[in-house]
Amino acid sequence: MTELRRRRVGIDVGGTKCLGVVVDDRGTVTEFARVPTPRSPEGLIDTLATMVEGAGETESVGIGVPGLVHLDGVIKASPNLFDVRDLAVKSLLSERLGREVHVDNDATCAAIAEWQSGAARGQTDVVVVTLGTGIGGGVIANGSVVRGINGFGGEIGHMVVDPNGPECPCGLRGCWERFASGSALAAQARQAVTEGRGEAILALAGDIDSVRGEHVESAARAGNVEAQRIIDDFCRWVALGLANLANVLDPALFVIGGGLARTGDSYISGIRGWFARMLYAPTLRPHPPIELAHHGELAGAIGAAYLPALGSDVGH
Amino acid sequence: MTELRRRRVGIDVGGTKCLGVVVDDRGTVTEFARVPTPRSPEGLIDTLATMVEGAGETESVGIGVPGLVHLDGVIKASPNLFDVRDLAVKSLLSERLGREVHVDNDATCAAIAEWQSGAARGQTDVVVVTLGTGIGGGVIANGSVVRGINGFGGEIGHMVVDPNGPECPCGLRGCWERFASGSALAAQARQAVTEGRGEAILALAGDIDSVRGEHVESAARAGNVEAQRIIDDFCRWVALGLANLANVLDPALFVIGGGLARTGDSYISGIRGWFARMLYAPTLRPHPPIELAHHGELAGAIGAAYLPALGSDVGH
Repeated sequence: MTELRRRRVGIDVGGTKCLGVVVDDRGTVTEFARVPTPRSPEGLIDTLATMVEGAGETESVGIGVPGLVHLDGVIKASPNLFDVRDLAVKSLLSERLGREVHVDNDATCAAIAEWQSGAARGQTDVVVVTLGTGIGGGVIANGSVVRGINGFGGEIGHMVVDPNGPECPCGLRGCWERFASGSALAAQARQAVTEGRGEAILALAGDIDSVRGEHVESAARAGNVEAQRIIDDFCRWVALGLANLANVLDPALFVIGGGLARTGDSYISGIRGWFARMLYAPTLRPHPPIELAHHGELAGAIGAAYLPALGSDVGH
Repeated sequence: MTELRRRRVGIDVGGTKCLGVVVDDRGTVTEFARVPTPRSPEGLIDTLATMVEGAGETESVGIGVPGLVHLDGVIKASPNLFDVRDLAVKSLLSERLGREVHVDNDATCAAIAEWQSGAARGQTDVVVVTLGTGIGGGVIANGSVVRGINGFGGEIGHMVVDPNGPECPCGLRGCWERFASGSALAAQARQAVTEGRGEAILALAGDIDSVRGEHVESAARAGNVEAQRIIDDFCRWVALGLANLANVLDPALFVIGGGLARTGDSYISGIRGWFARMLYAPTLRPHPPIELAHHGELAGAIGAAYLPALGSDVGH
């Protein structure tokens, strides 16, 4: 019985799939599930309830969801989910299950996973950056998660790094994620193809609409100079944002997660190289290491499982 | 005797003057001193010791100093002081006085003052931005000062907001303080004069080298359109940096301090207006208020006096 009571459920809700884990006391993932993400609020709550109940007797439930998530467990908006507005995941699921449920942003959950049992274990001051379709993040300072007054802290992808840069769907111009996300990398590659500089990339992708970051990576690894230039420029933009965050937070460590971290070997040395040139006062301080995340695609679910133990969404 | 033991000394070391205060238990400034800043390390320690001793019997001593200040109380570099490198203010002054001395960055001290007894009193999540020759800052999150692993947190003036922007003495390009500090405002005004658009400003300043922010303010207040345009552009850049910080930290409140806050009425409505247009997801959240600092030029000294009570530089 004692062992059973220590099992924690964590679920990471993504745009296409929900990943669920059961984590034991020692942080080991003992069970795993993957189901498609439903396309409606009712369907989502239903699926989450089924996943939690399917895990049997568990001590706690945590859910990571994409988008702007308020401290009270309401998704204010989530462009990558379905067109969710003001979905009270915490209260709806808590009511449905008859037990308390903790809810936070997916990137914050990924940061918590890396901090509690991954690349940033034992640190008090860490920034975790998830590079995927967009850029998410989680900030740990003084040994606590920095959620801010609404829970919207760590929305680092919308720092403006060039006010004359490309338009962002958010309505601003030159947000960091327009330069340093997976979709930014693909957009640069498609532009190179359009301008006749991307034959090698196009050959791998088949047609221009299919061009993705992985094609740029493959072409670069095969020695294509244009692909290497695109990746170097991408790494410079990633580093610029990290340097900005170092100025604000002075973390002991940066952790790079998200989809691009899975093939992070293609990027990490470039990011480190540019960061060393873009850090403020580089000769007067130790340079924070930049490490790849440990938990891969399970980071969000594992971090969600840790949420209740952190007293996460109790607020202020 | 009890009353005497509760008097706290705080000194703010500036480029030209050292301001000292004695603060009582209720946060009231009971004494005040101003002396020129000596131009040598020995002279500085000497002057600080004399100021502390002159305050009589006091419970604690805190010192705010400009520049990059390590958690161990060493000034790593301070371009606006004299050409200081690795000056161990904390240990030198502690040894000299035979008692413990606390040392931190001046903008961090100003932030602490506003948080403990000024515009941000009672808040848990606040960003204080000091607009002066450069831009400094102090971050409070989850009810604690965010110093980072070295103590270099809050160096927000060197966030890069336009990588193609003007060169910064720090070696980077397009740092926020190149657009949104007092010297940036003056530089914009001098450029307007050079290009023949700044007659009204020049008339107030006398000659181009004397042009300062206050001349732009005066010309704008008198209705000069070019001066108003320069101030509006300045306010836009201030707001852009605040919006970036909101994305990272989601504070309950921003406080604007530093030299420009003294005539802040010329800027605050412009900053607020632009901020409302540059905040990420503006329709999905309450907008954090942007307030002027309360403590004026004494903020640094008052915050320095509070340092020991916060256990400030104990580190991690």
